[in-house]
Amino acid sequence: MATAAEATTDANAMRRAITLAARGLGSTSPNPVVGCVVLDAAGQPAGAGFHRRAGGPHAEVHALREAGERARGGTAYVTLEPCNHTGRTGPCAQALVAAGIARVVYAVADPNPQATGGADTLRAAGVQAERGLLADEAEAGNIAWLTSVRLGRPYVRWKYAATLDGRIAAADSTSRWISSAESRADVHRLRAEADAVIVGSGTMRADDPHLAVRGAGTTEGVTQPLRVVVDTNATAVKPGARVLDDAAPTLIAVAQDADAAHLDGTGAEVVRLPRAAGGLDVHALLAALHTRGVRSVLLEGGPTLAGAFVAAGAVDAVTGYLAPVLLGAGPAALGDAGITTLTEALRLDVTETARIGPDLRITAVPATPVSKEH
Amino acid sequence: MATAAEATTDANAMRRAITLAARGLGSTSPNPVVGCVVLDAAGQPAGAGFHRRAGGPHAEVHALREAGERARGGTAYVTLEPCNHTGRTGPCAQALVAAGIARVVYAVADPNPQATGGADTLRAAGVQAERGLLADEAEAGNIAWLTSVRLGRPYVRWKYAATLDGRIAAADSTSRWISSAESRADVHRLRAEADAVIVGSGTMRADDPHLAVRGAGTTEGVTQPLRVVVDTNATAVKPGARVLDDAAPTLIAVAQDADAAHLDGTGAEVVRLPRAAGGLDVHALLAALHTRGVRSVLLEGGPTLAGAFVAAGAVDAVTGYLAPVLLGAGPAALGDAGITTLTEALRLDVTETARIGPDLRITAVPATPVSKEH
Repeated sequence: MATAAEATTDANAMRRAITLAARGLGSTSPNPVVGCVVLDAAGQPAGAGFHRRAGGPHAEVHALREAGERARGGTAYVTLEPCNHTGRTGPCAQALVAAGIARVVYAVADPNPQATGGADTLRAAGVQAERGLLADEAEAGNIAWLTSVRLGRPYVRWKYAATLDGRIAAADSTSRWISSAESRADVHRLRAEADAVIVGSGTMRADDPHLAVRGAGTTEGVTQPLRVVVDTNATAVKPGARVLDDAAPTLIAVAQDADAAHLDGTGAEVVRLPRAAGGLDVHALLAALHTRGVRSVLLEGGPTLAGAFVAAGAVDAVTGYLAPVLLGAGPAALGDAGITTLTEALRLDVTETARIGPDLRITAVPATPVSKEH
Repeated sequence: MATAAEATTDANAMRRAITLAARGLGSTSPNPVVGCVVLDAAGQPAGAGFHRRAGGPHAEVHALREAGERARGGTAYVTLEPCNHTGRTGPCAQALVAAGIARVVYAVADPNPQATGGADTLRAAGVQAERGLLADEAEAGNIAWLTSVRLGRPYVRWKYAATLDGRIAAADSTSRWISSAESRADVHRLRAEADAVIVGSGTMRADDPHLAVRGAGTTEGVTQPLRVVVDTNATAVKPGARVLDDAAPTLIAVAQDADAAHLDGTGAEVVRLPRAAGGLDVHALLAALHTRGVRSVLLEGGPTLAGAFVAAGAVDAVTGYLAPVLLGAGPAALGDAGITTLTEALRLDVTETARIGPDLRITAVPATPVSKEH
């Protein structure tokens, strides 16, 4: 049995590892975010690190480098089970053994069949390996990647900004600005954490959005998300559209029978997908993105596309920015999702509410997780 | 200058008076809610009371009775300036003088021309009278009555329950239950605090609502609010409607030219009002209620009536119960309010957010108070 003091030391170290891991959100894809803290044999901080980007060193390697000889006999706290495979970097389980780590505490098991088995490797080498410390917190911090591994498609967060009466624009289509500058800045943070941002043809036509991340984070070399436009009939994205600049890569999804010749030479990748009721097949779109290493997407609407994602059971989280404004007319935030009666409604659990400037930000997840429905 | 200890004593006593005042919400109309705390000459609690119902003793009288001789040389803390007129009970200013109170601290001046002047009467009798302690809190606690005096019409709180995407029902009109049992219980608290509850003909037809207050409070002899149905064409309220039972008084507002003969003998009062675009004249309705002593109303919708109130500039507060549910179709919470473009939107300030069971309750007030617009 660990003493209370030891348990506190363990929890503090893991919490720090979880905080470190989050700094990799948006730039590690297709890898997970991982944080690692190494304490020496006396329980003193010796090293820490996180996985910064795919192809770069894993969190454990950063932390072991910083710890140097002090790792010997020490404890490593890792948010995810250390990997067991040799990818672009060596297997972390062996690196921990080689550094003389005596004990590894990890929060969440690695569900990736290619990487799993790290704990077994550690134990075979005589290292004590313990799973589950702060597992819920670590899982929440890595939910996009974990969901993508479990479902084989990107994790989808639907973001919308609406009035208290659920409108995203006035009757005459004016929508600048329903939400506050603070909320719009917060959306850039969500974009920066996602591997891709998706809009539909309606938003494309109405707003000519840029979809790149701007704000404070960009000066630190943020990884721009892939910009994705669902332009079923290839009529919404015109040459000269802001989404076609070189600020970030762009993918335009069109129907297999659409005439998209005008998109040649724009620099955007054009992907042809099967049609489905009212647009493109959502699961085909997500599969195409998954193939390209996208593990998390921010779905920025509008209502038609959001309705299609809800209908497809492909919304894993919802972030709504509610502005304290009443309109009484204008389009609703969510369009037809194939729900005709209340018992078919998509029921969510609110996981967080926050004031963002004058607005409210509401975060919610399906009450029945998507992964259990399919 | 008061010492810090004296200031703390003053604030604590006034805060208790404000808390006591709130216990009268919903049963004092057409009077304000008022709380009073009396400390003796040594600063010890001697008496406390609140105004329970119109025609009954004022808060000061309750507190002075409890204090008895200990009031002499003491301090009275009152949430509203003591009244100066002889209504159904004697003027409180004179009662305070007669009891030997040396100092009166009141939070908010009485704007009622019939009752104002109490502080002058106190000072003329040699009693120290101070205004403004915790004025904002006291004003908030009495906002309905104060607004009704200032505007000459009842204070209007619009309450709605909607999904995160702003729907009050599914496409097939099913709406039971979008919000939770906890939220529905909370609405009964709002009803109990109001002098009247208003619904329109659409809600009448769809729900046949009862509109009386039920729940724990009713066992303590809660004053039932007046039930008001806006039934412009006198076609929605049918004999046998639940709103026609004897649980509470009922008023049915119809157009001057409507045939309402079928409502004779139902026990409900039928009031004839001028028509306005899409229904009845909202200000005429509010004037009719004000004449009947109604100082606060809970507008329970539906969307058409709520839109008319917003269009008339007659919404003083909004309480929305947002259920974490997505529908993608169905009627919106707020109907046409004459707003066609974003610059005309009704902008609010959020004053409170709370979790009510699984739902969110959002309370907001117009960013530009209604009283300054008209």
